[in-house]
Amino acid sequence: MFSQYRGFIHRFVSLGALLFAATSVSAKPIVQDAEFYILKAQHGDSWAKQDDELNQKLAALKEKFGTPPNIVHIMWDDTPMGEVGIPELQKLRGFSTPNINQLAAEGMNFLRMYTEPSCTQSRAAVLTGRHPIRNGMTQVGFPYEYGGLRKDEVTMAEVLGKAGYATAFYGKAHLGDIEQSYMNKQGFDEAVWEPYNQFPVIYGPQAEIAGGVLPTSTNPEIYPEDPYDMDKGWRTLGHVAVMEGKKGGPVRELVQPGDLPGWYKNMEDNKTRTLSFIDKNIEEKKPFYIAYWPELIAFVPFPERKTLSGGFLQEGLARFDPFVGQLMTHLKANGIAENTLVILMADNGPMTHNGPPGMVETLYRGGKGDYLEGGIRVPAMAWWPGMIEAGQTPGDIIHETDLFTTFAHIAGAQKYIPRDRIIDGIDQTSLLLNGDSFSRRDYVHIYTGETYAATVKGRFKRRWVGDLPGLSGASFYDLYNDTREVQPKMLPGFTTKGMFNSMRARHEIWMEKYPNKKMAYGLPFTNIENARPETIKASQPRFDKNEVPFDIEKVLKKTGDYGIIEADWGI
Amino acid sequence: MFSQYRGFIHRFVSLGALLFAATSVSAKPIVQDAEFYILKAQHGDSWAKQDDELNQKLAALKEKFGTPPNIVHIMWDDTPMGEVGIPELQKLRGFSTPNINQLAAEGMNFLRMYTEPSCTQSRAAVLTGRHPIRNGMTQVGFPYEYGGLRKDEVTMAEVLGKAGYATAFYGKAHLGDIEQSYMNKQGFDEAVWEPYNQFPVIYGPQAEIAGGVLPTSTNPEIYPEDPYDMDKGWRTLGHVAVMEGKKGGPVRELVQPGDLPGWYKNMEDNKTRTLSFIDKNIEEKKPFYIAYWPELIAFVPFPERKTLSGGFLQEGLARFDPFVGQLMTHLKANGIAENTLVILMADNGPMTHNGPPGMVETLYRGGKGDYLEGGIRVPAMAWWPGMIEAGQTPGDIIHETDLFTTFAHIAGAQKYIPRDRIIDGIDQTSLLLNGDSFSRRDYVHIYTGETYAATVKGRFKRRWVGDLPGLSGASFYDLYNDTREVQPKMLPGFTTKGMFNSMRARHEIWMEKYPNKKMAYGLPFTNIENARPETIKASQPRFDKNEVPFDIEKVLKKTGDYGIIEADWGI
Repeated sequence: MFSQYRGFIHRFVSLGALLFAATSVSAKPIVQDAEFYILKAQHGDSWAKQDDELNQKLAALKEKFGTPPNIVHIMWDDTPMGEVGIPELQKLRGFSTPNINQLAAEGMNFLRMYTEPSCTQSRAAVLTGRHPIRNGMTQVGFPYEYGGLRKDEVTMAEVLGKAGYATAFYGKAHLGDIEQSYMNKQGFDEAVWEPYNQFPVIYGPQAEIAGGVLPTSTNPEIYPEDPYDMDKGWRTLGHVAVMEGKKGGPVRELVQPGDLPGWYKNMEDNKTRTLSFIDKNIEEKKPFYIAYWPELIAFVPFPERKTLSGGFLQEGLARFDPFVGQLMTHLKANGIAENTLVILMADNGPMTHNGPPGMVETLYRGGKGDYLEGGIRVPAMAWWPGMIEAGQTPGDIIHETDLFTTFAHIAGAQKYIPRDRIIDGIDQTSLLLNGDSFSRRDYVHIYTGETYAATVKGRFKRRWVGDLPGLSGASFYDLYNDTREVQPKMLPGFTTKGMFNSMRARHEIWMEKYPNKKMAYGLPFTNIENARPETIKASQPRFDKNEVPFDIEKVLKKTGDYGIIEADWGI
Repeated sequence: MFSQYRGFIHRFVSLGALLFAATSVSAKPIVQDAEFYILKAQHGDSWAKQDDELNQKLAALKEKFGTPPNIVHIMWDDTPMGEVGIPELQKLRGFSTPNINQLAAEGMNFLRMYTEPSCTQSRAAVLTGRHPIRNGMTQVGFPYEYGGLRKDEVTMAEVLGKAGYATAFYGKAHLGDIEQSYMNKQGFDEAVWEPYNQFPVIYGPQAEIAGGVLPTSTNPEIYPEDPYDMDKGWRTLGHVAVMEGKKGGPVRELVQPGDLPGWYKNMEDNKTRTLSFIDKNIEEKKPFYIAYWPELIAFVPFPERKTLSGGFLQEGLARFDPFVGQLMTHLKANGIAENTLVILMADNGPMTHNGPPGMVETLYRGGKGDYLEGGIRVPAMAWWPGMIEAGQTPGDIIHETDLFTTFAHIAGAQKYIPRDRIIDGIDQTSLLLNGDSFSRRDYVHIYTGETYAATVKGRFKRRWVGDLPGLSGASFYDLYNDTREVQPKMLPGFTTKGMFNSMRARHEIWMEKYPNKKMAYGLPFTNIENARPETIKASQPRFDKNEVPFDIEKVLKKTGDYGIIEADWGI
């Protein structure tokens, strides 16, 4: 009845073969989350056999095209699972993305792609293959939080770059505003990126319009002068909306906060940049990796409507959709479609809390920031004509960190993955190329902020926070029967409570050997070539250290700590 | 972008043509709900043109096959929209109905089929083409409520029977236990039916098992003798689980309450009866109409599991699914598939309140009994090879009462629809044969019990009950943007409040001309040939009228009134 049994029959326990398989790739195996080893002990033998076949397939492809496969990873914001790729559900929502749906139909439409619950976490996870708890990127980054992605984190761009890939980043990074977190310092050859989310667009004259639609408008310029407003430091406009730079080169501000036309132009330019980067590397016969993470919306209503829905997200998706068709056509026309893996996905669930119109729960309960399925299950699809069979809808669990390890495998870059830290991402090449039931993961650790909030294992889910203590809480869910997590039951708990306890224990004990790190802290916006005076001001301490009696460097550090303490459970 | 515009361009306002079209079918036009005339005034002209084409098509089909089209209407219980027909969603729920999904793929999968919110209401509506408010079938019928479907209601079986159709009813009727409501007295040539729902199966030894799964078990026999239980009249077992009879013939009890093996056997027998009835009428060259309303479950867990879900509903659907394949094969093999319309659907949303495991909200909020979309939007599909184009997913609104009027049209039986009462059902032949955007309805009146609870008009929905009064309630929803009805907004209310007010006013004023009727009352289970002694006892007044000082006939009538007063809003 279900094709997932197909994979099972190939799985045999053989610890010897497992160790051989792990060591055959590199002298030192990748360090994975503790749970992975439980699965590997049971399936390592069949995985090794599959890998042999997969590697032959990849070698044949490289032989044919002369380079390892290109990778285009497109990831946008805040979209619930089911919102794209299933045309029936789009009709219910009053919009349509025919090109994205076609990509899904020509490839693989994942039904259980898990992400981290918010933007910064999710983007850090996919770029490093690690849960944000490992590297401190646990909070949604806002201006003057004085932090960002550590320079000693190894990104996908660095791993693939070492393997000879040309790398580019276009769109929303949301990984910090300190210099070491700049995308051109994190391994990308070319980068045009936003250090935050879409909020900077509200710092313009459109703030007034947005204020009528969103719960709040943040532009201080549209308020009358407040006689009780003593501290002008809270009203700074020095932050940056979009930056650009090349590896080793200078960084420039490309779009200022509040420049809505500039923002929209940049959204369009990123499409052109993506296609141009492809063309350039076709010419140079170089494999390429593009992280194109489009913004889709501006937190200000589009002036005219293209959908019946009219929701911000739906309008953004409808506007973005033709590019997906253009991209597929472009790859086919240039004869490299069969050597290019395209991944489309969202970064987390819909922003149901404080979000713009149209971002609501649909199939799953919860939204951005929540440990509920609605926060962490997203639409995701993979397209690779000739390599990924069309029309697949795998019911397997896959986590966004798996892309890190999977991309490294298909690029032949596994040896550049660092061995001194835990990599949560699991190699899912077999799922991509063999299909339904070939996932190598049946679990997800779910953190909100620094809080270990919930665990998924197969069909079961356990919450660790937010419920009554003891058996009365009964925070155990069967996700087949209770997709929306509204009927916690003791019965799934009876068989799984002890298992979940052991699972968490080994996850945490393994962390003692490979400890977590904190986010990097510092002053923002340093070394921007065309920095405005207010940006330069913002890049310096707000006070001369002689003006205040306390240690401002200690305050800076503590500010970061506060950010970490404040967990966002959402519900 | 959306194909619904297709229909719109054919729509012109022409009142003259409209009146002509209405009168050309019969001397007297069918009386419809007030809202219909608002649409007809705008679209009557194009509808008339469409009808000419449709009638030519139907005439050609009759010419080819010698009879008007056969109709098989399959309707089961308590299933949320999306639970069948969209394979991706079934994977998320851990079960699969490949045959039902194939039927949907070969035909039309409705995305906005509305029903009444509970079993009795829904079944009365589809059989009479009228909202239950019109004929008093507003409550879920339980034993000793002394009521049922009025004999002066004109059922689908009576309309089609007059047009020469052979008619059969198999399964769950839930339309009362008084003699005039018996299915063989309501126009069916053959009938095997349950007067209530599945609860009678709990009156057996399995009650104990069910009690461990469901909130309550109702069999008095498994309780110890209660020394304070003075009134044994509350513990009667005289009611009937399944009855059978032919038109004009005697009625017999076929399955007794608590007879679980008998219940399961009858579930299987109904499949055989359906296929045999088809064969018999093929032989006799008679068109047939079968209302096969299977039970699927028994309110007792199935002894073994066929699905990963294990939910009662999912198990029932998985077990029923092969029959759908068998039916399609049977119709094709006998060469009558192209002359047979098959409709598959559920009767209302999932029984989320007090229901068995597996009945939960999925896409929509609310369940059985609720005026929320989750209570009244069901999976529904139409299959008619050669007449209904494959692969369609119309986003149009259709209501289950429309089947009454539509079946009458395709059967050439419109003249037998009574003209002395309001028929809520609208002729949707054009939607079936022309597809997306060809619905003749953009509204739904939603009653729970006798309460007018909510109104749907296109993308908008208004609640009339359950919210704060005045603007603070803001009970206006945009169903594209807020599929789950959790963000009531004043903005859709600003443009639609007045329109909704007028709509309700004309709906109610029209009722003054064509008044609603009450349910029929009486003593249950009269004239059952093989009645058990306790059934005979139950069919008589509980007390001799000399034993009690009050008028027992007045009490009986009042009992019915109480049933009506108690509305079930669900939330």
